[in-house]
Amino acid sequence: MSQQKPSVPKGTRDFTPAEMVRRNYIFDTIRKIFSSFGYQPIETPSMELLTTLLGKYGDEGDKLIFKILNSGDFLSEVPDETYKKKDARQLSGLISEKGLRYDLTVPFARFVVQHQNELVFPFKRFQIQPVWRADRPQKGRYREFFQCDVDVVGSDSLLYEVELVQIIDEVFTQLGIESLIRLNNRKILSGIAEVIGAPEKLNDITAAMDKLDKTGLEKVNDELAQRGVPADSIAKLQPVLTVEGKIKEKFALLEAMFAGNETGNKGVAELRHVLTTLKALGIRNRFDFDLRLARGLNYYTGTIIEVTAVKTAIGSICGGGRYDDLTGVFGLPGVPGVGISFGADRIYDVLMDQNLFPENLERTTKLLFVNFGSKEELFCLNLINDLRRDGISCEIYPHAAKLKKQMEYASRKNIPFVLLIGEEEMKTGTFTLRDMGSGLQQNLSYNELKDLLKS
Amino acid sequence: MSQQKPSVPKGTRDFTPAEMVRRNYIFDTIRKIFSSFGYQPIETPSMELLTTLLGKYGDEGDKLIFKILNSGDFLSEVPDETYKKKDARQLSGLISEKGLRYDLTVPFARFVVQHQNELVFPFKRFQIQPVWRADRPQKGRYREFFQCDVDVVGSDSLLYEVELVQIIDEVFTQLGIESLIRLNNRKILSGIAEVIGAPEKLNDITAAMDKLDKTGLEKVNDELAQRGVPADSIAKLQPVLTVEGKIKEKFALLEAMFAGNETGNKGVAELRHVLTTLKALGIRNRFDFDLRLARGLNYYTGTIIEVTAVKTAIGSICGGGRYDDLTGVFGLPGVPGVGISFGADRIYDVLMDQNLFPENLERTTKLLFVNFGSKEELFCLNLINDLRRDGISCEIYPHAAKLKKQMEYASRKNIPFVLLIGEEEMKTGTFTLRDMGSGLQQNLSYNELKDLLKS
Repeated sequence: MSQQKPSVPKGTRDFTPAEMVRRNYIFDTIRKIFSSFGYQPIETPSMELLTTLLGKYGDEGDKLIFKILNSGDFLSEVPDETYKKKDARQLSGLISEKGLRYDLTVPFARFVVQHQNELVFPFKRFQIQPVWRADRPQKGRYREFFQCDVDVVGSDSLLYEVELVQIIDEVFTQLGIESLIRLNNRKILSGIAEVIGAPEKLNDITAAMDKLDKTGLEKVNDELAQRGVPADSIAKLQPVLTVEGKIKEKFALLEAMFAGNETGNKGVAELRHVLTTLKALGIRNRFDFDLRLARGLNYYTGTIIEVTAVKTAIGSICGGGRYDDLTGVFGLPGVPGVGISFGADRIYDVLMDQNLFPENLERTTKLLFVNFGSKEELFCLNLINDLRRDGISCEIYPHAAKLKKQMEYASRKNIPFVLLIGEEEMKTGTFTLRDMGSGLQQNLSYNELKDLLKS
Repeated sequence: MSQQKPSVPKGTRDFTPAEMVRRNYIFDTIRKIFSSFGYQPIETPSMELLTTLLGKYGDEGDKLIFKILNSGDFLSEVPDETYKKKDARQLSGLISEKGLRYDLTVPFARFVVQHQNELVFPFKRFQIQPVWRADRPQKGRYREFFQCDVDVVGSDSLLYEVELVQIIDEVFTQLGIESLIRLNNRKILSGIAEVIGAPEKLNDITAAMDKLDKTGLEKVNDELAQRGVPADSIAKLQPVLTVEGKIKEKFALLEAMFAGNETGNKGVAELRHVLTTLKALGIRNRFDFDLRLARGLNYYTGTIIEVTAVKTAIGSICGGGRYDDLTGVFGLPGVPGVGISFGADRIYDVLMDQNLFPENLERTTKLLFVNFGSKEELFCLNLINDLRRDGISCEIYPHAAKLKKQMEYASRKNIPFVLLIGEEEMKTGTFTLRDMGSGLQQNLSYNELKDLLKS
């Protein structure tokens, strides 16, 4: 075995203890809130069959799926004729049948269909797992990253839209991130495309509209024309592109536009109900109706949600929406659902940016016992046993090194307390505790020590 | 998109909510104990460079590593001459540069070397993550399974051997699994090979000896001969193969054998110290010196440990040992360490087999609010808000379905309590709580309800 300079594949990361405790703080907070709303955890395998994954994320998405090479002699089944062509695309279909999970939504849909007879509907599930995408890595974008998804399937009740916004509100309130929750409804967007006379251009309209904040009205209008939206449709769209002000005014505009348009009116009614209920329930983060919010994914059919951090510009930190038919492709049509996904990595960055992680997170061991020799060591090990069972994390230095070295270990590991038990202390039963923060020392009996550490 | 019958790749599994709560119970127990001993969590990426993985697990192991196909046109760099040969082994090295993690030990060694300047030594870490092996799937053996590793590197203190056995003892005591902890020392095995005059046959001797319980003495002696161990060496080995009885007698045998053999005596001294300390600390599970315990991996150099469940025959549920040089291959020689790994999947099977999972694990939602209509719904939602923030998991049925249907939902989802708030109850402020287990109903004020649910 030759020496090698160690590294990880590009776009992937190690997590050190300091990072882990911060990440676990996010996951634990989210998990606890999901559970308190009656959502139950599931997990799916890291690898799925390529037949499950391919064709669900568009051509671009398909290219970003990590494929796993078949085991053994993977070329034995490839016909010579095909092999000769040396065509990567064609060959990959013959030498690989599994891929790494690209998101948590498609595996969830597969799960629901496969386990439909064991599940109780409406099925409320959450799932916190890594996903993999062969994207070009860049700042804040990784090839392995973590999603926290919460979905309910088997009900079209708008109550769940409300519930998901409550979850968003609770998560960001508990984490201390001031957030803006923007809502829209796909039926409203469809209604708009219909009344301006370009229903078949819905995706072009939303794609262009999405850039309004970045590029401005003129460029959006140019893009609409370029995408083949007729001039009179673009003209009719202008009020939507320029409307400002309160929720009320937006609804007024839409009601005028939607006279007689069923889709649009249904979208307005749905969104109005959600917003009214949210208002009655006292949501603490700001929420708003964003008429221009589109979200890219074509499977959304009703409410759509996107959340940003008010004080850190990092893009969406949570998003999702309602879909009518996610499981149809796996043979189970007519199962409506709604769900959102929290981006753990971006939330981590926001918490770092705003210095919002609780201060005492990084400490793991609470107490270090100094090691003065084998007799003292055995004496200490018995005490340590007892303290650990009381939930106090502690350890003893592994051998009787110089006191300075042992103190240094405590200090570098951020251990807040050090206990000194030498021959004298073993006799008297009074131990010396050093507070590493203040440097102060005090003499304590074992019971006093225990009480102090538990508080 | 065509319909497809959904399934997962063979050897992989979905985890339903009922399985998840049981699995989390195992992971949480283990994680908490690891932390209480001062070990800190780390995580490494699911994929590692193949240069990191290959050559570390022997030829058989290399074949079991899942390789990831390079993205994009993965054939463009393959020379035509090489491609023409249609040789899977040669081609895979050119079209794949990453693989899925095969265990947690090699990634940990890579981590230690890569982050050596950020870490405090002795570095005590734990890591709970899935690993992947392209093994033939069979009952109890999966292609994706979870390991819980705990290691300390940067110290040769025998205190850590003691600590790891304490961890084993604590984990299986808390889980309620009566276990047998067998210990041995590689130096003792080396010493035996030396004194019987076959030091270069150490691996053959341990491999044959390992089968003693399964095949019996005669077959083991046959295998030893077959593996080229000289006849007089086999004769000298007989006392080791037949020794029974107490720890004392085994040590007596070895001391007689090891007169003047440094390696063997060092092993005896190490093991004696570990066993004596464990005895003084009051380990609750049975531990024993098993002179025939070998463990396959060649990197062990000192203490080796293996744990089985006394009442369920399923093989090893935990194992590990001391190694002198795990990081040398990555360019950092001279870092000794010791570690063990808990097999979460087998522990799960033992707990199921002995019916040891706590009874109330499977419940997630504690209280279901019956939905009587939109007015009642809004009234309930405010109460729910309050209860959730008090840590009580609750939900409301999504629409005003027939009572029977709502009750059925609660019953199928194992929700223990159902609350009925109709128009009358909204007026009086006295609510009807139904205990789904007993079927009993009682009328309660909101505060009484809250107290009851919190208890």
